[in-house]
Amino acid sequence: VSGYLQSLFGDDVVDALLADRAHLQRMLDVEAALAEAQAAEGVIPAAAAPPIRAAATIAALDEAALAAGTARAGNPAIPLVEQLTAAVARTDPAAAAFVHWGATSQDIMDTAMVLAVQAAGTRILDRLDEAADGAARLAERYAGTPITGRTLLQSAAPVTFGLKAAGWLGGIERARDGLARALGDARVVQLGGAVGTLASLGEHGPAVLEEFATRLGLGVPDLPWHAARDRPAAVAAALGVVAGTLGKVARDVALLAQGEVAEVHEAVAPGRGRSSAMPNKRNPIGSAVAIAASLRVPGLVATVLAAMPQEHERGLGGWHAEWEVLPELLHLTAGSARAMAGVLGTLEVDAGRMQEAIGAGGGRIMAAAAAMALAPAVGRQAALEIVGRAVRRVDAGGTTLAAALRDDPEVTAHLAPADLEAALTPERDLGSASVLVARALARHEARRGARTAEAGTQTFVDRGVVTTPSGPEERRG
Amino acid sequence: VSGYLQSLFGDDVVDALLADRAHLQRMLDVEAALAEAQAAEGVIPAAAAPPIRAAATIAALDEAALAAGTARAGNPAIPLVEQLTAAVARTDPAAAAFVHWGATSQDIMDTAMVLAVQAAGTRILDRLDEAADGAARLAERYAGTPITGRTLLQSAAPVTFGLKAAGWLGGIERARDGLARALGDARVVQLGGAVGTLASLGEHGPAVLEEFATRLGLGVPDLPWHAARDRPAAVAAALGVVAGTLGKVARDVALLAQGEVAEVHEAVAPGRGRSSAMPNKRNPIGSAVAIAASLRVPGLVATVLAAMPQEHERGLGGWHAEWEVLPELLHLTAGSARAMAGVLGTLEVDAGRMQEAIGAGGGRIMAAAAAMALAPAVGRQAALEIVGRAVRRVDAGGTTLAAALRDDPEVTAHLAPADLEAALTPERDLGSASVLVARALARHEARRGARTAEAGTQTFVDRGVVTTPSGPEERRG
Amino acid sequence: VSGYLQSLFGDDVVDALLADRAHLQRMLDVEAALAEAQAAEGVIPAAAAPPIRAAATIAALDEAALAAGTARAGNPAIPLVEQLTAAVARTDPAAAAFVHWGATSQDIMDTAMVLAVQAAGTRILDRLDEAADGAARLAERYAGTPITGRTLLQSAAPVTFGLKAAGWLGGIERARDGLARALGDARVVQLGGAVGTLASLGEHGPAVLEEFATRLGLGVPDLPWHAARDRPAAVAAALGVVAGTLGKVARDVALLAQGEVAEVHEAVAPGRGRSSAMPNKRNPIGSAVAIAASLRVPGLVATVLAAMPQEHERGLGGWHAEWEVLPELLHLTAGSARAMAGVLGTLEVDAGRMQEAIGAGGGRIMAAAAAMALAPAVGRQAALEIVGRAVRRVDAGGTTLAAALRDDPEVTAHLAPADLEAALTPERDLGSASVLVARALARHEARRGARTAEAGTQTFVDRGVVTTPSGPEERRG
Amino acid sequence: VSGYLQSLFGDDVVDALLADRAHLQRMLDVEAALAEAQAAEGVIPAAAAPPIRAAATIAALDEAALAAGTARAGNPAIPLVEQLTAAVARTDPAAAAFVHWGATSQDIMDTAMVLAVQAAGTRILDRLDEAADGAARLAERYAGTPITGRTLLQSAAPVTFGLKAAGWLGGIERARDGLARALGDARVVQLGGAVGTLASLGEHGPAVLEEFATRLGLGVPDLPWHAARDRPAAVAAALGVVAGTLGKVARDVALLAQGEVAEVHEAVAPGRGRSSAMPNKRNPIGSAVAIAASLRVPGLVATVLAAMPQEHERGLGGWHAEWEVLPELLHLTAGSARAMAGVLGTLEVDAGRMQEAIGAGGGRIMAAAAAMALAPAVGRQAALEIVGRAVRRVDAGGTTLAAALRDDPEVTAHLAPADLEAALTPERDLGSASVLVARALARHEARRGARTAEAGTQTFVDRGVVTTPSGPEERRG
Repeated sequence: VSGYLQSLFGDDVVDALLADRAHLQRMLDVEAALAEAQAAEGVIPAAAAPPIRAAATIAALDEAALAAGTARAGNPAIPLVEQLTAAVARTDPAAAAFVHWGATSQDIMDTAMVLAVQAAGTRILDRLDEAADGAARLAERYAGTPITGRTLLQSAAPVTFGLKAAGWLGGIERARDGLARALGDARVVQLGGAVGTLASLGEHGPAVLEEFATRLGLGVPDLPWHAARDRPAAVAAALGVVAGTLGKVARDVALLAQGEVAEVHEAVAPGRGRSSAMPNKRNPIGSAVAIAASLRVPGLVATVLAAMPQEHERGLGGWHAEWEVLPELLHLTAGSARAMAGVLGTLEVDAGRMQEAIGAGGGRIMAAAAAMALAPAVGRQAALEIVGRAVRRVDAGGTTLAAALRDDPEVTAHLAPADLEAALTPERDLGSASVLVARALARHEARRGARTAEAGTQTFVDRGVVTTPSGPEERRG
Repeated sequence: VSGYLQSLFGDDVVDALLADRAHLQRMLDVEAALAEAQAAEGVIPAAAAPPIRAAATIAALDEAALAAGTARAGNPAIPLVEQLTAAVARTDPAAAAFVHWGATSQDIMDTAMVLAVQAAGTRILDRLDEAADGAARLAERYAGTPITGRTLLQSAAPVTFGLKAAGWLGGIERARDGLARALGDARVVQLGGAVGTLASLGEHGPAVLEEFATRLGLGVPDLPWHAARDRPAAVAAALGVVAGTLGKVARDVALLAQGEVAEVHEAVAPGRGRSSAMPNKRNPIGSAVAIAASLRVPGLVATVLAAMPQEHERGLGGWHAEWEVLPELLHLTAGSARAMAGVLGTLEVDAGRMQEAIGAGGGRIMAAAAAMALAPAVGRQAALEIVGRAVRRVDAGGTTLAAALRDDPEVTAHLAPADLEAALTPERDLGSASVLVARALARHEARRGARTAEAGTQTFVDRGVVTTPSGPEERRG
Repeated sequence: VSGYLQSLFGDDVVDALLADRAHLQRMLDVEAALAEAQAAEGVIPAAAAPPIRAAATIAALDEAALAAGTARAGNPAIPLVEQLTAAVARTDPAAAAFVHWGATSQDIMDTAMVLAVQAAGTRILDRLDEAADGAARLAERYAGTPITGRTLLQSAAPVTFGLKAAGWLGGIERARDGLARALGDARVVQLGGAVGTLASLGEHGPAVLEEFATRLGLGVPDLPWHAARDRPAAVAAALGVVAGTLGKVARDVALLAQGEVAEVHEAVAPGRGRSSAMPNKRNPIGSAVAIAASLRVPGLVATVLAAMPQEHERGLGGWHAEWEVLPELLHLTAGSARAMAGVLGTLEVDAGRMQEAIGAGGGRIMAAAAAMALAPAVGRQAALEIVGRAVRRVDAGGTTLAAALRDDPEVTAHLAPADLEAALTPERDLGSASVLVARALARHEARRGARTAEAGTQTFVDRGVVTTPSGPEERRG
Repeated sequence: VSGYLQSLFGDDVVDALLADRAHLQRMLDVEAALAEAQAAEGVIPAAAAPPIRAAATIAALDEAALAAGTARAGNPAIPLVEQLTAAVARTDPAAAAFVHWGATSQDIMDTAMVLAVQAAGTRILDRLDEAADGAARLAERYAGTPITGRTLLQSAAPVTFGLKAAGWLGGIERARDGLARALGDARVVQLGGAVGTLASLGEHGPAVLEEFATRLGLGVPDLPWHAARDRPAAVAAALGVVAGTLGKVARDVALLAQGEVAEVHEAVAPGRGRSSAMPNKRNPIGSAVAIAASLRVPGLVATVLAAMPQEHERGLGGWHAEWEVLPELLHLTAGSARAMAGVLGTLEVDAGRMQEAIGAGGGRIMAAAAAMALAPAVGRQAALEIVGRAVRRVDAGGTTLAAALRDDPEVTAHLAPADLEAALTPERDLGSASVLVARALARHEARRGARTAEAGTQTFVDRGVVTTPSGPEERRG
């Protein structure tokens, strides 16, 4: 909604792809591809396509008139087709007769939406790869660094910061894969004409459909899907999982950056995260962006799902509800991915504080380990009670868990001093943490290899836009 | 998000109030009012306020730098204060020291948000009054016009179109009242300083707060509410009830406008509701807008509610989630109210078709009335079965309900022919419809009187903006 | 959904009110009140009402048959009326003819829903009063206890724990008032017959409506509201604001109870908040319940809002969507209120830890105060930079904020040592905290007085149920 | 929430799988499998596993005590483990020491949740296959049956009812595939111990994890996923797409069943869809169920997404929010699938009414076809205007579109009478409808073949439950 907030909550590249002018150009590209496909299949005269392609440039449009026409007609395709027809007529009145031939507004708007989703979605996948790389570097570097494990917001038992980062890594990679899959499924054109029968194309319907799709680098759906919205809905849902996953990472970072914890901090940069009143503060801005996205995205996903029951051949209101919501989902998820790729890539980690915190609290954090050391002898529940008693003594003050346990004959009857000490050593209580981290990193490496191999082979996205000389330059980089 | 869709889904006046420049000016007005209040109470030098007020104009700001600064600092108030400070310093370096004195970013942003909500909300109330007036005119004009009553999307029994419109009227008025009340409750400034203690104002805190509120025409809250978001949440929720209520009206209109029903139509206007391919269509665009809003608003309300648990003195992410969502709620609800005020004010009603449809179906629609006429004699459930049998004969073809009932000795044993005929007359089956309509209209008239009486007395809204000579002209109209 | 989770997430009293048997009895009570009202107005024979009242007891119903009948008929009122009719017929066949006279299923179900909402809602109000009382006691007791103020999850500047609690208090009271108001607005019967015209009541419609409402202790609506759902929607929305407000309190408590902070703890009770594996943990269970509710309630509110556009005289699907969602909203909000009333009423507060934390960090927390002390001399932004420099020296280690500032000639040039020391004293940086707390407490006291005065005067809620001898005992307590 | 509504909104088989007793048994099965896996790997004594398996039966549990314990402890696993431990101790005190060894409550609850999701999800897939088969039969049978195509709730141009059904088919199949994929991805155990390190299993962690998964027929995740909720979130999202897709079918059916349209009806069955007051009504109950689900599911999906940012190693509140919401999502989606499988399998279709409706309206529905016939000669936009003029004459009354066009010299100048007549013949305006239907049916057949081939090979789901002699019988059917 707001221009001055766009860069904070979004990603500049994705926002450029979603900008009004870029999107209107995309609709024009779709009209041009349609004319070319129909000319190729003999549905319209061959001579009609070049003038339509030539006129299909945003520079020729009157955007204010378009906005007014949209409010009047009820969708932007109608005034856009009128303006395009008039532009073609100025150079070739005969060709003007064939603008938007056999199509309905929704054919153009949905296909342009697919192109936008693919273009923005691909960029989000890249940002998620960056974020995963950042998490992987943290997982590797801190694979052996103990940190307080925390459950239900209470200090619990030791983990490693590497394991924590590996958990972030796994979530990001899976969410990325889910999005990639949903994008792949949704990579199809929309073309059905007024009611989905391709009636105006006579027997050429399937051939035009094929040609139209090829020219845009998109796939051919079995059937028009004007009122069957599962594909965009599944993309929206996948974006929801991405935003939630990034929100989890952001929440962890923000909690670890609290003054009392201070185990990590978002990187310092000039002017970044300042307070307007408190020079002692360094606000975790990247996390704020991702947390805000994780709060806003679910409601938008719900909107797309709630809008799915669209009436008959093309719906009233449900389809309209998607127009701004899908771009907003892309915008917010892209912003979240951008923010967290930045946070993970530059996170400041204070391994010393982590170590220190584990030692604080009189060794309380080793209580579970102590109980498990006792359990084979006295049973798990009895062990929990014995150690619980010792913890209460620690809480009452003046002793440590180690001392309290050494004082307890129910403990010393079963555990030799050396075994007790071993049980109370955080570094020996990390279980399979390093194995689990290694496993996550191995999978990450395998994925990176696959990514490199496929790089440069993706030519399908927003090709109609990219091959148009009038396309905005930000989409060429 | 999109400029060319804004007029379709929104209301131009509300959108102007919510525009970037208008809102930045509002933040500047809040800074100016703060300085003046502090000068008045002796917290800052009296001479500091006038230069701050003078510099507090959007024309002096570099909006591109503001956007960049927002992305860096994490909120727009920080770069805005920097620019304002620099602007003041150019004319009065001493005064520049006192810009944003004792305030935190959220004080400015929340107070500006309150002003925007009040300004836009007041406009929405007006639009709802228009919509109510439209519904009232329909209720009055068609109080005696029978129409098929429909339940669970099935033809049921006769009602009047006036009663239907009175139902719309009642919903709109109650939703309006709920919004007015929530707006009233939320009409308070935000001022607490860094952590809500007004620490930098020494003992002058309460007095400055009072003065600040007076200057902005707003109320004084008991306490700062940086992380207690019930007031904006209640406004969001009230907007949700408004959008749902208008969505109900829109859905009814759209269903009545179906080709097979055709009892009402949205008014024709040049270019309005055309199809890009079908000259026979007249799309109910106003209803599409309101239905789309009724699908989008609930997710946004849920977002505001989900964002309420904001941490400690000022939250991370939850507050940020509100920034764009509250304006979007105002935009969409305003657009829905604008659209339905238009639809109701100009609705084309075909009373003939309504009458005709009641007669169609062999009188099936009178089945409930027939059963109730029989029920005193045979019991309600037996009567339902007898008439159900007759309905099945009508459905099998070749007879009417009247004939089928006249043929049935179980009917004729209990009902004289004249009584049966009376029971099958739609006009005699309207129960209390006219009384109910009259009651609704009487209440509407009483409310209109009250509205007229209070007109012109509302001076509280966005006064800080309105009294500022630099305010953008669209807010003056 | 799950029985063994009900007591964790709910409130036993409210859950008893919402239980199947209680609610079916409520529907029967509504049928009885309807018969009595119609008998009183001469619409049905006077002799018909007593047998209907007598038979209208849940003990007479076959609940399994009712469930099967509901799945078949599409709503529970139809099989319930059938069973009630059969039960009446066993004692008085003539009276059986008049069961459910002139009503539609939705009349019964909506009116019973209103009674349930009022009964449960009143209980939630009581729980919120308890929670408010708990917050008020904390605000009073700790009005002078400094605690670290935290913004954007960073340590910021001192506040008092009393002010924090006063903030909770204010939110709870306002959310409570909003709920009370929405409940008041929704306290009306539903009665319209098949299509809302009261057709079967002839000219007695309004009189029966009045009598029916009086007997149930409810109000009379202008019009039937079968498809105008603003009243229940506004109640749902108000419950959403309540759940969000309690979620904020819960989040604060959970954050303050973190191991590294440990400034408050939920009260210990046997078995409460244990871990299944870690004897050192004490999970903040009450807060978990309220946070979970604050996550679940927004989606349910959105559902109620999204379901508002119900078709024509009575809708298909939208109404059905409310049946389980409204009770779930009451259940979850009641559980949250119950949990937080408990948490606030018994919270363990460690004022020593609060004090200690303020002193930690080398006095960094006083940075804003130091800057404000310098600002009159050097300007606000310059002061922020000077103090920021000192903070960075503190962060680099080996010094305190006080020492760093005393070392800086730009500070000493403007601030005398005593003034600097004063500026760095947390107790002198609390601004208007105590005034604000006093204000909040005064308002709370006034409200308590009003509550006491009105106690016992509320006789309107679920009276139909309460006056029925067959009502389940849990509703009598 | 309510027992008597369960069969209406749910599916009895799925509801039995989700019932309290079945789910508690599932948790016990998980505990038993854990003990066996640990015994097999030498982590606990081999002799400990059989008594644990033997005692792990719901019949041995005190469910009331469990509910009370859940409210106290904060989750059901804690009292369940206590009861299980006591039960084992009664026969083998030594074995009792090893109950729940090395596990945390969430390990048990999440793994049981996975089993429940898989069992219920598989059933939903089956129901969707049934629904798809029903849609396919309709598509095949009515491939050549013209019906009014409707867009934006207006009559538009002819389609076939077969194409409409093929559109339903495609949506259902794609939504089913998305759910199958999400279920496949989520088919992994949860096992990490207190903080996800498998600390209590020493070096045996990975081997126990493998063995545990094998015994339950589930996969092994890279890492514990206690606070990485993408897998259940993706299942929830896929259920959302399913519910939305079914909602679209239901809305179409309900609209086609309106009295004025009456082109299809839900099948009649005794007592099904009756009104409590109107014998002429036949309510589309199946559609009501699916529409209600499509309104309720999005809010629940949003809840699961909003709950994703769970703190650190195991979260507070977010995880708790899932416990009842995931089962509710399965319940509602299963109910919707059950209802629509029934509706589609038995739909009554009135091809005569469909044909009739196309002819009604003076041939208005052929306007787009007429315009396209004219367009090659005069241009698309001019053709739309010429035909629009004729449509307005039809609307004014007394003529048909054919006559109006034959009267217009701008038409006759370009179109021979035979060409005009051809253009106005609905059967010649169906474009590629039959090709598209054939394509959809071919894909459906291919899928059916694949389904048959894989039938009987799925042994992975809820095996822990199925292999337990104590499993409730409804899960065996």
